[in-house]
Amino acid sequence: MTDFAETKTLFHLPEGVVYLDGNSLGPLPKSAPARIAQAVEAEWGAELIGGWTKCGWMDQPTALGDRIGRLIGAAPGTTTIGDTLSIKVFQALSAALALRPDRRIVLTDMGNFPTDLYMAQSLLDALGQGHVLKAVAPEEVADHLGEDVAVLMLTQVDYRTGRRHDMAGLTAAAHEKGALTVWDLAHSAGAIAVNMIGTGADFCVGCTYKFLNAGPGAPAFISVAPQHAEKTEPILAGWLGHAAPFAFEPAYRAGLGIERFRVGTPPVLQMAALDAALDIWDGVDLAALEEKAATLGNLFINEVEARCPDLTLASPRDARHRGSQVSFRHPDGYPIMQALIADGVVGDFRAPDILRFGITPLYLDEADIRTATERIETVMKTRAYDLPEHREVKAVT
Amino acid sequence: MTDFAETKTLFHLPEGVVYLDGNSLGPLPKSAPARIAQAVEAEWGAELIGGWTKCGWMDQPTALGDRIGRLIGAAPGTTTIGDTLSIKVFQALSAALALRPDRRIVLTDMGNFPTDLYMAQSLLDALGQGHVLKAVAPEEVADHLGEDVAVLMLTQVDYRTGRRHDMAGLTAAAHEKGALTVWDLAHSAGAIAVNMIGTGADFCVGCTYKFLNAGPGAPAFISVAPQHAEKTEPILAGWLGHAAPFAFEPAYRAGLGIERFRVGTPPVLQMAALDAALDIWDGVDLAALEEKAATLGNLFINEVEARCPDLTLASPRDARHRGSQVSFRHPDGYPIMQALIADGVVGDFRAPDILRFGITPLYLDEADIRTATERIETVMKTRAYDLPEHREVKAVT
Repeated sequence: MTDFAETKTLFHLPEGVVYLDGNSLGPLPKSAPARIAQAVEAEWGAELIGGWTKCGWMDQPTALGDRIGRLIGAAPGTTTIGDTLSIKVFQALSAALALRPDRRIVLTDMGNFPTDLYMAQSLLDALGQGHVLKAVAPEEVADHLGEDVAVLMLTQVDYRTGRRHDMAGLTAAAHEKGALTVWDLAHSAGAIAVNMIGTGADFCVGCTYKFLNAGPGAPAFISVAPQHAEKTEPILAGWLGHAAPFAFEPAYRAGLGIERFRVGTPPVLQMAALDAALDIWDGVDLAALEEKAATLGNLFINEVEARCPDLTLASPRDARHRGSQVSFRHPDGYPIMQALIADGVVGDFRAPDILRFGITPLYLDEADIRTATERIETVMKTRAYDLPEHREVKAVT
Repeated sequence: MTDFAETKTLFHLPEGVVYLDGNSLGPLPKSAPARIAQAVEAEWGAELIGGWTKCGWMDQPTALGDRIGRLIGAAPGTTTIGDTLSIKVFQALSAALALRPDRRIVLTDMGNFPTDLYMAQSLLDALGQGHVLKAVAPEEVADHLGEDVAVLMLTQVDYRTGRRHDMAGLTAAAHEKGALTVWDLAHSAGAIAVNMIGTGADFCVGCTYKFLNAGPGAPAFISVAPQHAEKTEPILAGWLGHAAPFAFEPAYRAGLGIERFRVGTPPVLQMAALDAALDIWDGVDLAALEEKAATLGNLFINEVEARCPDLTLASPRDARHRGSQVSFRHPDGYPIMQALIADGVVGDFRAPDILRFGITPLYLDEADIRTATERIETVMKTRAYDLPEHREVKAVT
């Protein structure tokens, strides 16, 4: 049984702050500074070029990938890390399309994260084969799964509302129609108990800087079901995906399995942070995490609704249908969030009217939820948000 | 006048080692550990999500890009950083091809770094428009510049031999035939005085972990001549290249100028290292650097040839025709390099028979060159390399 009171002690959490924005950027694991300093000084500084072999830098992407793979229920040896999530979406969709050469529809939903839509559209435009990106309402996805769909590309948990797609059901429905699936797990990995093998998902991608807590600009991951990995040639044929990168052959030969989804030189300093972050995850039971997250999320909803009647729930009320995030709507959402942040309740805002609160038991407990909801009540009742300084718009991720 | 005795003091160089592999991975700037620790603890740890605005993370790619831009003679506001060099090659070539829609040849040379060739070929395959990647001998590039060439894509300095292409002459020749140029400056940036504006180069890309010393896995850069930047739609349409990333619009609208060549979330920890590394460069005169590098390289050649008749020069003898690297050939190149590394002279090996030595005045002086060549002489004369432990093959970048 995971002891969440203990995992909470493993994070640096600023005094007086209730941090409800781990769905955007997770907090600093206490072990990360020393791990990163080791990579910088004892590895880069002392070993110089030798670090690639002596310190295992070259093999880390797939080793780290496997540790993430466990968190999303992927088979060992089918996950690697690198690049950004945008790039990994591009890779995964390209590979999936190549496996369905006679179909031209990529089905997605209108709530998908914009970069997924952008990268998909730019890929389809580049291919120039008449593919169409078809974005429908999230609840209508299943209705649009026809025999002409090549790939169903979805983000499991909606970045604004936290609404969760039925990954198993939609994957089965897609397969029934002969389509493949690309699942973006940006808001799922480390948030809920994903089961890539169990759902039969074909391609999964995600980022590690949200619930996995690997730091700003941490690398992305990609998992490819073993039956697909070697059936396509990578569209991004970087040298580290080559079967023999250091043979410097003039022509590309794709590496074995997931290795061919590597592209360029891995980000060693960011990998050190990821390594430290994953140490915490190694002891976590995902089912227990999801259950506890649901309890905390339900408490948050109940408390906010009881205290703040002007805030309208934007997330599914049933925890089984949401990720590890609760969102509310309010026309003054932006200044309200600024006032909350100033008062030490850190969530974030998404246009036009969404207040997002990331809730994870890894470093939040019932007392934090009560503190946060009390402060939210105060901000709402005193209209503390109705100040010019809170209305001045600042961009955040 | 740049004081190279002073710049040398700004690096952590392990005792007893003469580091001649900065063409693969530059050494640790002494200011980098504290700068990285600041990004980790004072920024990520203390500011959490607020770091994106309060600590300027979001604007850093283009700010850092401009500082690199000065080193390669690019116009202000035309350079940004991110991703890996493989990805930046893909972006640049794609954009260049879109500007020459009626032509189908990408001309390159057989000595180009493999990942450039792989990424180019995979791009051309994906486009499916009958483009051909034509790789000719380096010295014959100009002869193959015909009216059918869309893009001349070259790495200015050969990664094995250090042979330097005439960037100005070949760019002019390409333009004369109506072709555009993509220059990979991986072994040029921080090595020689590149003049992107002066040569009229269209697209330049490069990495920052070699002569720029930004650490293992440091981000790549891309510079785009201002007349081209807004004329094409990015093939990798990531959200941070969008005109308004935080509006979360469903359709992509390319950002202004070089901004559209950004893709995903920037690597904040790697950027901190790059920032520290560029502090050293801010005071360096590139013409003085190139001149001093030539002096050191010539000394190295003269000393090695005088002491080690079995080593055959693989680099151009005339410093004007090589980068900041000197290579020699020997059938036992691999074990010789292992023996040299064991003896504190760190270069590297490239198959089948190349010993590479990176030479930069930023942290190497005449005394280092003499120490290195004395040790090379000893290894060769005593055949210290002829041991099983030196013949065991280990991969390095």
